Amino acid sequence: MTTATSPSHAPFHAVDLIRTKRDGGELSDAQIDWVIAAYTAHEIAEEQMSALAMAVFFRGLSGRELNRWTQAMINSGERLDFSSLSKPTADKHSTGGVGDKITLPLAPLVAACGVAVPQLSGRGLGHTGGTLDKLESIPGWRASVTNKEMLRQLAEVGAVICAAGAGLVPADKKLYALRDVTGTVESIPLIASSIMSKKLATGTAALVLDVKVGSGAFMKTLESASELAQTMVDLGQAAGVRTMALLTDMSSPLGLTAGNALEVEESIEVLAGGGPADVVGLTVALAREMVIAAGRTDHDPADLLTSGVAMDVWRSMIRAQGGDPDAALPTAHETEVITTERDGILQSLDALAVGEAAWRLGAGRARKEHAVQPGAGVVLHAKPGMRVWAGQPLITLHTDTPERFAWARDALAGGYAIGDTVPEERPLILDRIG
Amino acid sequence: MTTATSPSHAPFHAVDLIRTKRDGGELSDAQIDWVIAAYTAHEIAEEQMSALAMAVFFRGLSGRELNRWTQAMINSGERLDFSSLSKPTADKHSTGGVGDKITLPLAPLVAACGVAVPQLSGRGLGHTGGTLDKLESIPGWRASVTNKEMLRQLAEVGAVICAAGAGLVPADKKLYALRDVTGTVESIPLIASSIMSKKLATGTAALVLDVKVGSGAFMKTLESASELAQTMVDLGQAAGVRTMALLTDMSSPLGLTAGNALEVEESIEVLAGGGPADVVGLTVALAREMVIAAGRTDHDPADLLTSGVAMDVWRSMIRAQGGDPDAALPTAHETEVITTERDGILQSLDALAVGEAAWRLGAGRARKEHAVQPGAGVVLHAKPGMRVWAGQPLITLHTDTPERFAWARDALAGGYAIGDTVPEERPLILDRIG
Repeated sequence: MTTATSPSHAPFHAVDLIRTKRDGGELSDAQIDWVIAAYTAHEIAEEQMSALAMAVFFRGLSGRELNRWTQAMINSGERLDFSSLSKPTADKHSTGGVGDKITLPLAPLVAACGVAVPQLSGRGLGHTGGTLDKLESIPGWRASVTNKEMLRQLAEVGAVICAAGAGLVPADKKLYALRDVTGTVESIPLIASSIMSKKLATGTAALVLDVKVGSGAFMKTLESASELAQTMVDLGQAAGVRTMALLTDMSSPLGLTAGNALEVEESIEVLAGGGPADVVGLTVALAREMVIAAGRTDHDPADLLTSGVAMDVWRSMIRAQGGDPDAALPTAHETEVITTERDGILQSLDALAVGEAAWRLGAGRARKEHAVQPGAGVVLHAKPGMRVWAGQPLITLHTDTPERFAWARDALAGGYAIGDTVPEERPLILDRIG
Repeated sequence: MTTATSPSHAPFHAVDLIRTKRDGGELSDAQIDWVIAAYTAHEIAEEQMSALAMAVFFRGLSGRELNRWTQAMINSGERLDFSSLSKPTADKHSTGGVGDKITLPLAPLVAACGVAVPQLSGRGLGHTGGTLDKLESIPGWRASVTNKEMLRQLAEVGAVICAAGAGLVPADKKLYALRDVTGTVESIPLIASSIMSKKLATGTAALVLDVKVGSGAFMKTLESASELAQTMVDLGQAAGVRTMALLTDMSSPLGLTAGNALEVEESIEVLAGGGPADVVGLTVALAREMVIAAGRTDHDPADLLTSGVAMDVWRSMIRAQGGDPDAALPTAHETEVITTERDGILQSLDALAVGEAAWRLGAGRARKEHAVQPGAGVVLHAKPGMRVWAGQPLITLHTDTPERFAWARDALAGGYAIGDTVPEERPLILDRIG
């Protein structure tokens, strides 16, 4: 039943690589280079790559394999080059969470500190939302920027948040779409190489990772999040990029909003010196790590946030990409309020439930070709630890399609609890790696 | 990063089944029925099925899952029905080995005992050869038979060896082709369900399995072969078919020939009352199991082999499918002899090396669309334990394409050993299960 080897023009047979990995062996550098390049060139069938990805899920990749795999992914496309800039660069990546709008205030804040921030972002799929979807709720703003425009904006404004061009890590675009439908997303080496290949291809000199932990995050446990963070930090450092990671809590949503325009609004509050304490705290913590990694420590980011300097950069950044920072943001046509059932203290508010509700209201998409509703989402009126009173608003649902209210309420059922004692406070920053 | 569930017309999402199996869970009966039917109907992508197959490779299938999976495979196509025959039916399956021509003498022998033998066979891929390829070396013989012709031939002749129609277990045809290129062949539940779905779909009342063990077999160890045999026996018995298995040695080739016409020739010798002892012994052993399982024990198959009754059935069987049992068999254009290097006793003769050499000479195919050379193959002049003399022929290579001789010699290099002591005799039948 075994198929004997026959002469062929390809240097390897995909099935041999699959078997090697399946049986716990290591792929050679040449095999890794070949499999990524041939897959990108459509010379390896999707069903073979999915079998290999599943074998990697079970067997993992060694450090050598993972470094090579990531480099091969980078080599599948173009690299950006910011070496002509007169200032250092720093980039940030979040593994995604509910209400995670941190990139919006963070990029202009770090730019205000004299560090160039090239922030290539994605659109959201599922309950975590996407930075580009959020910014696209600003009238006129466009995500698409040429490499030349990006370089100019970094020189003049200091920050750019934009879509990654099609030329950047095409192997990952193909592989991620495959993993999404084949149950092979949840593999630490595949996640790490997907994220890091894109970040390293941008040619940043410093990289700060925000690895989320909890129900609303991809990593549910501190252990798995630590492993992912350490893997990515190792990959970055092996590639000569100053890389570190914060592990941050995602058992509850960040801030008081989940949804596109709603999160932009909250971000602007933060840039205006207000906003929820957790969003402000995490923005400043990440900004401090980025300016340290970039070696530009003459300002404390906290000062530039309260002084309005970061807001000035935000306005320039939005304007540079066609957006009107003064335009009214879109709002949903309909709202519905969930009121508190009893007096007490909010014990918990599950991030996944809130993210799922926002998604069901239209803030997210089920398929990448779907559109999102800019005004849809969830506004929270309390956070865990806060006192609430019967009959008072607890959560407001926003949507253009009111038939979705019941579906969103279902997602929230059991997603929060009210009690009489003060719940134990959960720190926002759980660990620091690198 | 997770994709939220959206309403859909399909009862399940393939990715959910993949994740369940990947994480060690069990698939429900409804999920198994759906995944096999939807895959057969091209409603599940190949890359999803290959990921599921790889997850099954790592996680296995429970007894319940495997029974259901096999039934779902059977339900993907038509079933044959031999209940109108006035005699019992018995079928045999070999997991494949080098020089395994046993079906050729066995089917007419068992038919001579009054048992109908519907032997749906396949073509070979790789080094083990295929029963249909062997028979197709007989001038005029055709593998393709309608269900009606098969029933008539079983009634009149008693035995038919033919190709399975396209309607029989289409799920397996698709799945086997996928497994072959995705490194998911070597999974006991997938092997067992592939074999047993086809055997059970033929509606036989009794089934004898010949599970090969050794270098030339798919299963290299007695342990893995036992597990496969027990799994298949359990599947057959759960489906109400009297099923048993012999575990037989495949460390050396069966008989003295490997190749299509060469093996037909050897089979005819056996039917004429001669032939190598191992081929005769295994043929009789399997025949005895089949007639016992079919409840027709009035004759000892050994008697009907030596008396020539089985040969008469063979001739009728070949003639019924257009073949001329008296026609000369094709021979290869060229031969080359490998001579013995020294006097001594042949210690071992590796089945895989011989199978690979026969394949390289043209007896087998690398891809299913390739043709085989009817005359190509290997003839052995000694078996392990036999005395050999320097300069005497040890192995003769046969091919129409003499440029392949060197390639075949490479396969045989190190594949045999000559020593001075009598090697320990390895029994042909290693175990009996069921």
